[in-house]
Amino acid sequence: MLKKGILLTVMVATLLLFGSTVFAQEVPALAGELFQYHRGQDIFFMLMLVAFLMLFIKRYEWGVCLMTMLVLTVSVPFYFAVQTIYFGATLDMSLIILGVVCAITLVIAAGMFLGQVKTWQYIVVSILFVTAYSINEWFLFTFLYGLADAGGSLLVHAFAAYFGYGVILALRHKKIFDTPMAVTVHSVSFVWLASMLLWMLWPSFTTALLAPEQVIGGMITTYMALMASALVSYLMLLAINKKIDPLIYTYALLAGGVTIGSTVDLVGPWTAYGIGIAAGIVSCLCFIYLHPALEKILGVRDVMGVHNLHGVPGLIGALFAIPIAGGVQVSGAVGTVIIGLIGGAVTGIILRALGRNEAYVLDDEESFAMTDPRANEGIPLPRDTGVSM
Amino acid sequence: MLKKGILLTVMVATLLLFGSTVFAQEVPALAGELFQYHRGQDIFFMLMLVAFLMLFIKRYEWGVCLMTMLVLTVSVPFYFAVQTIYFGATLDMSLIILGVVCAITLVIAAGMFLGQVKTWQYIVVSILFVTAYSINEWFLFTFLYGLADAGGSLLVHAFAAYFGYGVILALRHKKIFDTPMAVTVHSVSFVWLASMLLWMLWPSFTTALLAPEQVIGGMITTYMALMASALVSYLMLLAINKKIDPLIYTYALLAGGVTIGSTVDLVGPWTAYGIGIAAGIVSCLCFIYLHPALEKILGVRDVMGVHNLHGVPGLIGALFAIPIAGGVQVSGAVGTVIIGLIGGAVTGIILRALGRNEAYVLDDEESFAMTDPRANEGIPLPRDTGVSM
Amino acid sequence: MLKKGILLTVMVATLLLFGSTVFAQEVPALAGELFQYHRGQDIFFMLMLVAFLMLFIKRYEWGVCLMTMLVLTVSVPFYFAVQTIYFGATLDMSLIILGVVCAITLVIAAGMFLGQVKTWQYIVVSILFVTAYSINEWFLFTFLYGLADAGGSLLVHAFAAYFGYGVILALRHKKIFDTPMAVTVHSVSFVWLASMLLWMLWPSFTTALLAPEQVIGGMITTYMALMASALVSYLMLLAINKKIDPLIYTYALLAGGVTIGSTVDLVGPWTAYGIGIAAGIVSCLCFIYLHPALEKILGVRDVMGVHNLHGVPGLIGALFAIPIAGGVQVSGAVGTVIIGLIGGAVTGIILRALGRNEAYVLDDEESFAMTDPRANEGIPLPRDTGVSM
Repeated sequence: MLKKGILLTVMVATLLLFGSTVFAQEVPALAGELFQYHRGQDIFFMLMLVAFLMLFIKRYEWGVCLMTMLVLTVSVPFYFAVQTIYFGATLDMSLIILGVVCAITLVIAAGMFLGQVKTWQYIVVSILFVTAYSINEWFLFTFLYGLADAGGSLLVHAFAAYFGYGVILALRHKKIFDTPMAVTVHSVSFVWLASMLLWMLWPSFTTALLAPEQVIGGMITTYMALMASALVSYLMLLAINKKIDPLIYTYALLAGGVTIGSTVDLVGPWTAYGIGIAAGIVSCLCFIYLHPALEKILGVRDVMGVHNLHGVPGLIGALFAIPIAGGVQVSGAVGTVIIGLIGGAVTGIILRALGRNEAYVLDDEESFAMTDPRANEGIPLPRDTGVSM
Repeated sequence: MLKKGILLTVMVATLLLFGSTVFAQEVPALAGELFQYHRGQDIFFMLMLVAFLMLFIKRYEWGVCLMTMLVLTVSVPFYFAVQTIYFGATLDMSLIILGVVCAITLVIAAGMFLGQVKTWQYIVVSILFVTAYSINEWFLFTFLYGLADAGGSLLVHAFAAYFGYGVILALRHKKIFDTPMAVTVHSVSFVWLASMLLWMLWPSFTTALLAPEQVIGGMITTYMALMASALVSYLMLLAINKKIDPLIYTYALLAGGVTIGSTVDLVGPWTAYGIGIAAGIVSCLCFIYLHPALEKILGVRDVMGVHNLHGVPGLIGALFAIPIAGGVQVSGAVGTVIIGLIGGAVTGIILRALGRNEAYVLDDEESFAMTDPRANEGIPLPRDTGVSM
Repeated sequence: MLKKGILLTVMVATLLLFGSTVFAQEVPALAGELFQYHRGQDIFFMLMLVAFLMLFIKRYEWGVCLMTMLVLTVSVPFYFAVQTIYFGATLDMSLIILGVVCAITLVIAAGMFLGQVKTWQYIVVSILFVTAYSINEWFLFTFLYGLADAGGSLLVHAFAAYFGYGVILALRHKKIFDTPMAVTVHSVSFVWLASMLLWMLWPSFTTALLAPEQVIGGMITTYMALMASALVSYLMLLAINKKIDPLIYTYALLAGGVTIGSTVDLVGPWTAYGIGIAAGIVSCLCFIYLHPALEKILGVRDVMGVHNLHGVPGLIGALFAIPIAGGVQVSGAVGTVIIGLIGGAVTGIILRALGRNEAYVLDDEESFAMTDPRANEGIPLPRDTGVSM
């Protein structure tokens, strides 16, 4: 049943991508496929930038990049193998896109348990995640009928957040609370760069699975939602705190892109703008009020605030589609939370059995040997000293 | 008359973008529109990079990013609203591009009065700018007949510089001269990154409004002009100063892209190369000799040297098209300077009434609360300390 | 003979690019050419990123960017001039791509002799390099028949490494061994950024000269090889050194892209994965064992380890195509090494006659005047002090 389900999902997606181009007015099949080339690449681009969005912790910069590359290089080929070997899918442009969408979901989720897991364990996490993600993919697009989520509010964002929550709830890693998390000016400048480029690339993500004739419309709704959330986040932070916390603003300005995911192809530009306003307000409120409250209640730390940008705004995005798609949106949201939490919890329990990351929480010294790399003074180049860095 | 003019401009641009694709040999309408997808995105990319081109002031890095996002998120929807509500334009791919071209013009202009204006005031600036910009757009493409400016030498670059001059002349903010403007190695490395990527993306800007069959030609002339200005800037700085000022070189190397704007679709590759040589020479001379002279004479500071890269090279670009388009280029240049100066001055006067930025000239402390962020030592993460940063 | 040969090469490449699109099912000529637009831009993007991949030396950051811009702006127009004036080629989309591929090869090669050559001398190097590169281009694609190297394992990567070796062997610049090469945390973060974006962009490089209907297949093999090399590099470094040297990992993770060059259009996804595994293993072993051994034996320093990422993995890439293309691959590899070494040696001898870079080996002070820029403290902005920086 499950196998058949995922197969169907892939078939539907393939049909969406290629079938539609055949019937689409005036876009021949090869041209349509070539158009996907740069959009596929854009999603890889976004995956890399998600790493730099999380690069702000002074003692944990290179480790975020290394985690990202590990997650990418394990989960994508594993996803390809599962889909082609077990379910007979073809390794084509559409599977490339589906694979990197799966991987970017895990990179987002990892922001929640960053530093709480040993670096090599991301290999294990990737295998387990792909499995849980595939189940949710089947649930949303095969088990349920008529769900609106072309841009991944549920499939990607909400699932990432609740899988992450499952992991940290199972790990219950207290040491993360004692770890100093300072930033430097330029570490935050990298975050600005990543956030602003993610903002620009976002339509490639939300429209990746749309038919060619829907793409421009999806680009417009996505940018409208993003412009709204970026403006309203500034106003919210100014109103509440007088000063702008750059590590809230650079995240919350993206909330419109998260929330528009379910309705990207279903609403007009100014409705999208309204959805973006709601997304920005909700995300800021989550960062300022919900985040510390949940930390106190649950006793676990969402390191990057994934729940504030992806969790709640993702769920709300699904609910905004109720007037169009009906109650199936509620089922999709509830199911995603449950599958995410269970999948994450199982992963967390297995990780706990493999040993938590006790010595080097949020510290590059775990993976990279260096005398005092954080003084921002020069470190001798390993090849000159013969010392491994 | 004005309303009708802007409507006509939009209609002409729409016809240029879409009409041409219908008649263009072998590029069907939808394929042509999809081709614009990534080019539209490229211009958003460039807008973000303009922020990083201005990120070199040690105490004012995040503030530049925040200003950029504010300008983007206020001016683009306002431009859309004006065009669709008042002038009946359709919010389609072409309007997206016209909107972000408007916004990038303001981000460039803001480089001139950076730090002299309070951050929240950029919301006001955006509204006023869109109005002035729309008048100049109407003047250039509807009032005048046959103007050559497909790549925006006048519409974008010259207008940005003279609008900016209008603002600083009206503000007359003396405190900017007392503000220390130091750089760090990496703050300038971000500038190198931005400059080099802007160089690479530039053809997407100059060819954005060309018919599909003119795009490759425009890419070639743009790169030729940019290669010339980048080489000649190095030689000029070497000849005049023996050493390279990175903050002149990273700007002047882009001058060819500014100057080729008016003739991007009208000249051959080697003529474009010649135009680029002239652009590089002129821009370097402006940075080295004209900039300090104008500061002394006018008593105001062009913070980023916008006039040296966009002002003079933009005007010269328009004049290079005289042999092809005739005297209308002179009218276009003169009109752009006048409309820019007046629009900027009105904006400056209003800003002055709203209160100049006295306490925090070029200082991130205006928007971001932090103990001593500029020591480049770690700053505690606000979420850990409970202190708003 | 030579002239005719290069002309033929260009004709074949032109035919490949445009002829094929005419016959390709459903991709009209203009659409095919427009598709090349963004791929051409991507290669410019990669050229810029190669500079940032080499930005890790604390005292030599801006100098790498300046060198890159000089190489780009001299070699591309010179390549255009040679091809159009002497060989009657047309300056079109395909020549743009061939030109920037030539320039990126020299930027890679320059990594080997960085700091050992005065900055202005890169103008001379560019002229000499374009000549040697053109000879090798003729040798591979005109003199030899049936060589498989669509993605440039030999044309770009191996040639870059052996040209570089020729230069450093002729220069024999001992002072490079005494130059301190320290890094800072963020200088290496720029390298991570460059490496991860190069990884993402790589298919645009390997498929740039393929027919439209081969592009998606080439994208898939390229990403498969890159995923393999990135994973296996991590595992290799972990197994050998326990800790990850970021300056080996960020380079070796790209080895799959180098090695797949010759077979990008000839193998299936999982064969490509196998090729990527081999590439990652070989590149890591070269960095760890071959690099110091060759330094001792030859008495010269390959500053960026170009031979470890481009030299050996490039040659191996050519050899992996032997089962398909036959012994011509061996001839191609041997010829590339010989032409590269001789071309580099001639260049090195001429550079030696022009004077080696003695005073400022790997030091930005050569090009940029500054009191103590490397303390990472603020440096006064030249325009404020009136001092040239």
